[in-house]
Amino acid sequence: MLTHADDAELERLQLSKGTMALVDADEAETLYAAMGPAVEVSGGSAANTAAGIASFGGAVAFVGKVRDDELGAVFSHDIRAEGVEYSTPPAEEGPTTARCLVLVTPDAQRTMSTYLGAATGLRPDDLDDEVIASARVTYLEGYLWDPPEAIDALRRAMDVAHRAGRQVAFSLSDPFCVERHRNEFLDLVDHHVDVLFANEAEAISLTGAGSLDEAVKALSGRCRLVAVTRGPEGSLVLEDDAAIEVPAMPVDEVVDTTGAGDLYAAGFLYGLTHGADAETCASLGAVAAAEVISHVGARPQVSLSKVADAAELTLDDRRP
Amino acid sequence: MLTHADDAELERLQLSKGTMALVDADEAETLYAAMGPAVEVSGGSAANTAAGIASFGGAVAFVGKVRDDELGAVFSHDIRAEGVEYSTPPAEEGPTTARCLVLVTPDAQRTMSTYLGAATGLRPDDLDDEVIASARVTYLEGYLWDPPEAIDALRRAMDVAHRAGRQVAFSLSDPFCVERHRNEFLDLVDHHVDVLFANEAEAISLTGAGSLDEAVKALSGRCRLVAVTRGPEGSLVLEDDAAIEVPAMPVDEVVDTTGAGDLYAAGFLYGLTHGADAETCASLGAVAAAEVISHVGARPQVSLSKVADAAELTLDDRRP
Repeated sequence: MLTHADDAELERLQLSKGTMALVDADEAETLYAAMGPAVEVSGGSAANTAAGIASFGGAVAFVGKVRDDELGAVFSHDIRAEGVEYSTPPAEEGPTTARCLVLVTPDAQRTMSTYLGAATGLRPDDLDDEVIASARVTYLEGYLWDPPEAIDALRRAMDVAHRAGRQVAFSLSDPFCVERHRNEFLDLVDHHVDVLFANEAEAISLTGAGSLDEAVKALSGRCRLVAVTRGPEGSLVLEDDAAIEVPAMPVDEVVDTTGAGDLYAAGFLYGLTHGADAETCASLGAVAAAEVISHVGARPQVSLSKVADAAELTLDDRRP
Repeated sequence: MLTHADDAELERLQLSKGTMALVDADEAETLYAAMGPAVEVSGGSAANTAAGIASFGGAVAFVGKVRDDELGAVFSHDIRAEGVEYSTPPAEEGPTTARCLVLVTPDAQRTMSTYLGAATGLRPDDLDDEVIASARVTYLEGYLWDPPEAIDALRRAMDVAHRAGRQVAFSLSDPFCVERHRNEFLDLVDHHVDVLFANEAEAISLTGAGSLDEAVKALSGRCRLVAVTRGPEGSLVLEDDAAIEVPAMPVDEVVDTTGAGDLYAAGFLYGLTHGADAETCASLGAVAAAEVISHVGARPQVSLSKVADAAELTLDDRRP
């Protein structure tokens, strides 16, 4: 649920600009009543990434829990209409479908308050092992690392993927997420993750470093690939001992940065699963992020496959 | 629920471009499943007009029925957040909140399939006579002229308004609406309506005329004011024997014409209730319509009060 707001409104609502805060049902209700008229757009970090991969033409399945309510039906419709396979059964009782109240300030920053609702009900038996085993990469979002059963589900997904000889990608999602789970996340990075996505603040928070340079040193070589996004500064990919700098794609006007990291991951993973080298993966991430920040909402509004073609990032190896 | 579509998709879905068709719950479900990822924005013809009037700074109350479901809560939130007084109690049983599936084609035309749902449950006892009696103008949409109890409610609203010495405005809403109810609408125009809103097709359909000129002749003098909107050709206001032509406001790019008529009515009614002459009313309608067709969605995204100031349409008489 996206609305425009100015800095004074963020202050009045005691929101910290640029972050994601978890809220309970009552807090979500109170905040919603206080905010302006909104637009509803399907979202969810990993779901946005899945939608982005489908828009590139990749084959992708999404796992995540909604309730059998109206917003759950909207979410299910949209992700399937994007071309993503989605068959997690909706919850028939318990909390409503998750929602995220997003306030976009004139500087295009987004400040999010998320009610996880039914999403916290994801359980290991919601996973389809065959789908995971057949996927080149299983991508997990750190946002979900809170409810114990969801953590069990994430751990099981990593396990199934690795047993099948597949790769696991993980997004740190948010600096506050990292603060809450630093030790577990470090253990994941060292032992369970092949491809790590982080923005600058998350990388610094995870490593306890004093600067990005220090964070990069601390992360280097800890998993197969580490992609650190840096907003307008582009991204940095750590592969073995090398650090590859890839510029951001310029945009005419940054309208709403919601989903920038999600879509970067989409481009990167699309490249990775289609035989691209690390630099091309990061460039695909850059064009996808550029598309999504040039309009309100966190999912692409045009075909990313065409956007990639226009940027001459066409991959020869269009594997199914 | 708005999505983009091309002409081939309209054909495949057997939709007639530019019109509004009523659909039942099953048809709405089938069409939704067949259409692309969508954006949800609050709408409803008269509700958009109310939101527009509030955006000009006018005092406005809306009457209309939703259910106590998630989309009903979204509608109620948005219209109140726009600054509109809204206190019709939601239905606690029966059909869900109305929804309109809107397919926007590259030529910016909108093709709508509407499931009226809970909106058909509006009854005379949902009206607050005091609010109606205190309003300078009570504005009714022809779209609602179908369920017998809603028609009773509309007739009672006109009656309460006139007894209080107030004015009644009416929008013909859609050519198919006019076809279904031509004789009743003609009777309304002759005996119960002070200000009539119609587009070209509706005016021709109502009068059975062969051309706009004939339709204008047939409508002239039948009520205090008749405003005929003509898209990019602007509008024509009939007042007594005079026909005043008012140009459309040029826009850089027409993105989505959804809500153009609704917002024209908003500007016109804001002017009318603040002492403006007919030409200024139509110009206020033109600037409001221009704002709403320059983006996706049927409600203003910027303050219409500022838009009017920029167009030097500031009214001295800002009555409460």
